[in-house]
Amino acid sequence: MTTVEAVAASVNQTWILTVSFLIFFMHAGFAMLEAGQVRSKNVANQLTKNMLTWAVGVAVFFLIGSGFSSLMSGGGFVPAAGNASGPLGYVGWFYGAVFAMTAATIVSGAVAGRAKLRAYVTYTFLLAAVIYPMILAMTWSSGDAGSITEVLGFAPFADFAGGVIVHGMGGVAGLTAAAILGPRMDRYSEDGSINVIPGHSMTFAVLGTLLLCFGWYGFNVGTGAATAQGTGAGSLSLITLTTTMAMAFGAIGAAGVAYIKSGKVDTLYTANGMLAGLAGITAIPNTTTWWGSILVGILAGAQ
Amino acid sequence: MTTVEAVAASVNQTWILTVSFLIFFMHAGFAMLEAGQVRSKNVANQLTKNMLTWAVGVAVFFLIGSGFSSLMSGGGFVPAAGNASGPLGYVGWFYGAVFAMTAATIVSGAVAGRAKLRAYVTYTFLLAAVIYPMILAMTWSSGDAGSITEVLGFAPFADFAGGVIVHGMGGVAGLTAAAILGPRMDRYSEDGSINVIPGHSMTFAVLGTLLLCFGWYGFNVGTGAATAQGTGAGSLSLITLTTTMAMAFGAIGAAGVAYIKSGKVDTLYTANGMLAGLAGITAIPNTTTWWGSILVGILAGAQ
Amino acid sequence: MTTVEAVAASVNQTWILTVSFLIFFMHAGFAMLEAGQVRSKNVANQLTKNMLTWAVGVAVFFLIGSGFSSLMSGGGFVPAAGNASGPLGYVGWFYGAVFAMTAATIVSGAVAGRAKLRAYVTYTFLLAAVIYPMILAMTWSSGDAGSITEVLGFAPFADFAGGVIVHGMGGVAGLTAAAILGPRMDRYSEDGSINVIPGHSMTFAVLGTLLLCFGWYGFNVGTGAATAQGTGAGSLSLITLTTTMAMAFGAIGAAGVAYIKSGKVDTLYTANGMLAGLAGITAIPNTTTWWGSILVGILAGAQ
Repeated sequence: MTTVEAVAASVNQTWILTVSFLIFFMHAGFAMLEAGQVRSKNVANQLTKNMLTWAVGVAVFFLIGSGFSSLMSGGGFVPAAGNASGPLGYVGWFYGAVFAMTAATIVSGAVAGRAKLRAYVTYTFLLAAVIYPMILAMTWSSGDAGSITEVLGFAPFADFAGGVIVHGMGGVAGLTAAAILGPRMDRYSEDGSINVIPGHSMTFAVLGTLLLCFGWYGFNVGTGAATAQGTGAGSLSLITLTTTMAMAFGAIGAAGVAYIKSGKVDTLYTANGMLAGLAGITAIPNTTTWWGSILVGILAGAQ
Repeated sequence: MTTVEAVAASVNQTWILTVSFLIFFMHAGFAMLEAGQVRSKNVANQLTKNMLTWAVGVAVFFLIGSGFSSLMSGGGFVPAAGNASGPLGYVGWFYGAVFAMTAATIVSGAVAGRAKLRAYVTYTFLLAAVIYPMILAMTWSSGDAGSITEVLGFAPFADFAGGVIVHGMGGVAGLTAAAILGPRMDRYSEDGSINVIPGHSMTFAVLGTLLLCFGWYGFNVGTGAATAQGTGAGSLSLITLTTTMAMAFGAIGAAGVAYIKSGKVDTLYTANGMLAGLAGITAIPNTTTWWGSILVGILAGAQ
Repeated sequence: MTTVEAVAASVNQTWILTVSFLIFFMHAGFAMLEAGQVRSKNVANQLTKNMLTWAVGVAVFFLIGSGFSSLMSGGGFVPAAGNASGPLGYVGWFYGAVFAMTAATIVSGAVAGRAKLRAYVTYTFLLAAVIYPMILAMTWSSGDAGSITEVLGFAPFADFAGGVIVHGMGGVAGLTAAAILGPRMDRYSEDGSINVIPGHSMTFAVLGTLLLCFGWYGFNVGTGAATAQGTGAGSLSLITLTTTMAMAFGAIGAAGVAYIKSGKVDTLYTANGMLAGLAGITAIPNTTTWWGSILVGILAGAQ
């Protein structure tokens, strides 16, 4: 017999799978965004990095990272391999993995045209095995008994869909890598003047931006649980709105600043504004107000 | 306790969100279709228009247009901002907004390579604030007591997924704009002969076409409610079929006409045929027969 | 009144529609993968083939192929047209059709730059009307009373999501066509040495690969039914994992072999490895173990 509980579980499972596929699809967005913004000579290398980020990262996160995360959260070293625990089984692991790989791939943009493939793959290994799992244990799992933050006496941490955990961590890792690697070759002329390094295809860059916006709905809205339990339905409703407004006003803010500064609207500025608005709202889409999300979007886009 | 009604509401909500994401994704399709069909020098401008159509349009529709629509429908000026009414809350508004922005972006193709960005953004503002909300009040909301059509004594209006309301309105607005702006520069030689203006990338144009076809399933099938209530399940079934057949026979009709007229099958003709078949069926996918949808597809594609 | 059974049916129907849209979207992936790997002069022809594969194929499968399939399965010639049988109605037919068209389009890659459009469309007609329906009757429908395999006394056939039925059949058909057509023009110099024919855009090829990976989740995970019935939920969980691992280790295997053989990682090799891993796991994602899927991925990618 079909019970209400079984149907509700199916709704949650298919919803989580649907949004996880959308989040996975963001790798196509990152690949196009980055391929469009590098020089022609770097395209092949960049695309290889994008594919291997997912392939190496998700393999390492499954075999090692998931275990390191549970260890640091006070649950002992229990990797996901061969251990489909929880009501969602491997679907729950997959949902966590697409978030982890989003954090990993952000770095590929920061080091585009800078890093050798072997060094980059080594970094991906470390991020998926140790760095991101450690961040996880210190944040989303930080209330668990025996977790590293509980042992050290830190306060719990609120970040709805990974504004800091995914995007902040990816950004810091990318900035660190960029600082270590130094500027791209040909960035400076012999007399020290700066050379602009234009991307080779604006169309691919904007395509990547729109693919990312599509996937981002999975990222933010997907983090709200499907089945209405108390505030469930209202949560999805608010997240949909604030995500949309931050994206829209991010583009408006960036386009406005570009227009004021140079008298014309720059295409890539506008695209970056959309993504900046989305990154800005990701930590708080479930608690901010509609006008709060507009403010976040404008501030993030106008940065 | 989880009730059947709560689970059914979750099914409807997640289904509406899923198809709304697909419809939002059509902006990537429009961007690629149009970027591929303009000359290289117009690509950046065109991509900026595509992004700002969504960003400016959805912001204005939220802050003003939704209020103007309710005013003309007899409900007073009640904008969506701060007023998540109805069982779906902001999800219902979002679902309406992705339809509205599809109507808005159709014009960007008609004025590609013709309009300045500032003029285009002004138009987007007007469409999202006044024009589309007015059309809404005269059609989908036209049976409401106190609505403008009820006051004027007009008959109600049937259009399942916006064949006229979205695509017809977008087309008329685009035609009007094109008539006012006149032909593209370089369209005519000094002696009055016509210059063909080829697009710069057929691959992007076909990519855009296929992205639009993907999103269109959300557009048409998504308009059928998820939970079976009487004819619900049968409705989704028929809409899936007629949408598919109109798309397929649109391509066949266009390819056939091109083959008969020139002895070879034109790629962009075929792509336009797919989209024409889809636009043709959008008003009636829930009531036509399987052979009716084939006829609609052939006629629309062979236009 | 809303019953549990009605809600469960809605969950299944919307899930099947969602994954069917993803599988349909694979045509965009095939189009980009193939357009990127052919020479510039063949792009338009290739894109036309991709669109007409879907358009002609799905029309023929609806009008003829579905009837031929039921005939060979012992149910008489009952085409889907005008006969929405089964609890899912046309949605069930659509779900079968997106699998059939995936099989059909695989051939378009094998004959890229080789076949004339008219010959290719004729082949698509035959595949959708006779070949694939015959394979269906001999495999997924092979247990039915009166089916051709039951009459001939063959054993039933297990293939979860079409590893052989879709991908194997498409591959054999493509190989046959390639053998008949012979090598591409310009493949050999006059002295018999081989000319490498590089594709014209690696970015489009990788975009196509990632679109296919996205759609493939629909392909494999979608084949697991949504509503938990006994092993239902566990099945979705395992399929998600094994599909992900085979994809990841396919890329790792291909990249590793390329690195060992040539000292550098080839981009298209890596992309093909991802797809090879996915094709390799498609027949068995619901029964293999996590380490089995890793093995399948490495072997398929390193081929």
